[in-house]
Amino acid sequence: MSRPYNFSAGPAVLPETVLRQAAGELDDWHGSGVSVMEMSHRGRHFTSIAEQAEADFRGLLGVPDDYAVLFLQGGATSQFAMVPLNLMRRGRADYVNTGSWSKKAIAEAQRLGEVNVVATAEADGFTDIPAAETWQRDAEADYLHLTPNETIGGVEFHWVPEDHHGVPLVADMSSCILSRPVDVSRYGLIYAGAQKNIGPAGLTVVVVRRDLLGWTRESTPSMFDYAAHAKAGSMLNTPPTFAWYLSGLVFRWIWDQGGLDAMAARNRNKADKLYRAIDESAYYRNPVAVDCRSRMNVPFVLHDPGMDGRFLAEAEAAGLLNLKGHRSVGGMRASLYNAMPEQGVDALIDFMGDFERRRG
Amino acid sequence: MSRPYNFSAGPAVLPETVLRQAAGELDDWHGSGVSVMEMSHRGRHFTSIAEQAEADFRGLLGVPDDYAVLFLQGGATSQFAMVPLNLMRRGRADYVNTGSWSKKAIAEAQRLGEVNVVATAEADGFTDIPAAETWQRDAEADYLHLTPNETIGGVEFHWVPEDHHGVPLVADMSSCILSRPVDVSRYGLIYAGAQKNIGPAGLTVVVVRRDLLGWTRESTPSMFDYAAHAKAGSMLNTPPTFAWYLSGLVFRWIWDQGGLDAMAARNRNKADKLYRAIDESAYYRNPVAVDCRSRMNVPFVLHDPGMDGRFLAEAEAAGLLNLKGHRSVGGMRASLYNAMPEQGVDALIDFMGDFERRRG
Repeated sequence: MSRPYNFSAGPAVLPETVLRQAAGELDDWHGSGVSVMEMSHRGRHFTSIAEQAEADFRGLLGVPDDYAVLFLQGGATSQFAMVPLNLMRRGRADYVNTGSWSKKAIAEAQRLGEVNVVATAEADGFTDIPAAETWQRDAEADYLHLTPNETIGGVEFHWVPEDHHGVPLVADMSSCILSRPVDVSRYGLIYAGAQKNIGPAGLTVVVVRRDLLGWTRESTPSMFDYAAHAKAGSMLNTPPTFAWYLSGLVFRWIWDQGGLDAMAARNRNKADKLYRAIDESAYYRNPVAVDCRSRMNVPFVLHDPGMDGRFLAEAEAAGLLNLKGHRSVGGMRASLYNAMPEQGVDALIDFMGDFERRRG
Repeated sequence: MSRPYNFSAGPAVLPETVLRQAAGELDDWHGSGVSVMEMSHRGRHFTSIAEQAEADFRGLLGVPDDYAVLFLQGGATSQFAMVPLNLMRRGRADYVNTGSWSKKAIAEAQRLGEVNVVATAEADGFTDIPAAETWQRDAEADYLHLTPNETIGGVEFHWVPEDHHGVPLVADMSSCILSRPVDVSRYGLIYAGAQKNIGPAGLTVVVVRRDLLGWTRESTPSMFDYAAHAKAGSMLNTPPTFAWYLSGLVFRWIWDQGGLDAMAARNRNKADKLYRAIDESAYYRNPVAVDCRSRMNVPFVLHDPGMDGRFLAEAEAAGLLNLKGHRSVGGMRASLYNAMPEQGVDALIDFMGDFERRRG
């Protein structure tokens, strides 16, 4: 029996082959006699798993050698504090406000220093990204923070801000990492919760230029000190070993699919199809400006919001799961992460057309 | 084929039936069509998993209603900072130093306030617990912190300190939680990394009396604020869902075994057997005072440390894994957590006797 299509915004669909491999070796990893969950994180088996995962991740994104890759806990929410605690040496930073997740990052940073919101799209309901020429950037900022993909609003940067007096770029790529190639060298720090394109919830990956490390406030908890984690090879304490392992299987799967170029082409194709179906319909609508629509999260509303419940129930019966939009936006949201096959998008489009015709 | 016996100090052995159940439902939980790893943490499936796990945990430990149970990330190392950040209202706390983990907790707290070490066993190499009558306690301390079981030294409290002017007791139970019944009402806060008796690494369980919540430093990251987690039902952000689920399976398994009374009897029996074999031998030695020997972690040294490598290699060949002691102590360590069956201890004792005879 084929699996249903899971459009959850996160935790999200994982590649079926990865799940099958994990199930098959769950109680005995490669003849070791133990589960990955039962391995000492400092033993030879887990060390090999961890190193392979990091090497595969570095290869996929082309991470330069002068960047550390850290496998941490706490999700993006921890990063919202960890970034200012480690990078806000002068006590001020620039933030771009493009939606719910930007706002959370800003609120957390404001407790730790001076935040300059260089641009905000709040006035038009976060359906656009303010043009870079309008941003009020600070040449002395410790960093500029942006959210390249807003999971809730469905807004995505398809460009990277230009350098501004060497101010490091910090990006929350939780919901777009590994969905397309990235020029890591243009960023000072990239972070991402795992539970969209990487693996299970409970793991956070951080890519950071090593020259930015080495300073933090004296009162910073050790667990919030990037330098301590980098020095310890992400084993300052017991890491989330199973999530790390599972993510490694996902990295291998991406390689098997052809790497990030192949992912980008597939993701563009999936998103284009769905937006086209929405735009060509009189029944569905996506409010986001065309040039900053997300390829990962596609929110849409029905002509008649009174039909939302029926749409969701019929979709679920048709094997199309978790399409309910975030409560702050309403309507529907289809998340199209790497592991969502094109057939899932086709099935959704067919269902949407059918639902519309039956209501039309 | 039977599984080898895994004596790892953590991440550690899990119940075989739990691993088998998890493998069987890894790609389709209870007919939902999705893996637990793919579920939204706010959806009905995961909500039911999370609630059942909390209820089972509360039942096992008999957690009173005026205590919150939190499912967090970051391990005990995060708790070393989170405890003072949330409980050190007056800026000073008492700590008992009984070994490596106590020392780490003390070092982290010292960065955040005044630490009064009420007693230390460092002078005699952490092989004893100073008698309570000798402790220099502060009636005005914000709390008294202790480590009921020291994973590295193999030292365990078999008693609970008396109340002292209502100063709350805070306990790092990472390596002994669920190994025996605990009178939770005697503690203000209990925390434990999951990777010994609870489940996979990446989950930390905190039990905290609700009247202790509500204060923290202004600069505390949200993720380090107990009250914020309690208010959000441990879903302030995406929790480590798979680790939470797996832990729930372990809680069910403990119930099936007869609960904590049964666990305590089994654990006492396993430890007694092994200590007896060590004490009766002229070849092996455990340095810890008899009345504070750990039932979870049994360190022992060989008469001839030059034989350590051979002992470990032969043990591994005999299906007895991860017996190497911590580098700071040397020798061997057998961790006998809940999921280590009595047959594993019997096999270890047989092997030790055989090894001794062949060298004798």
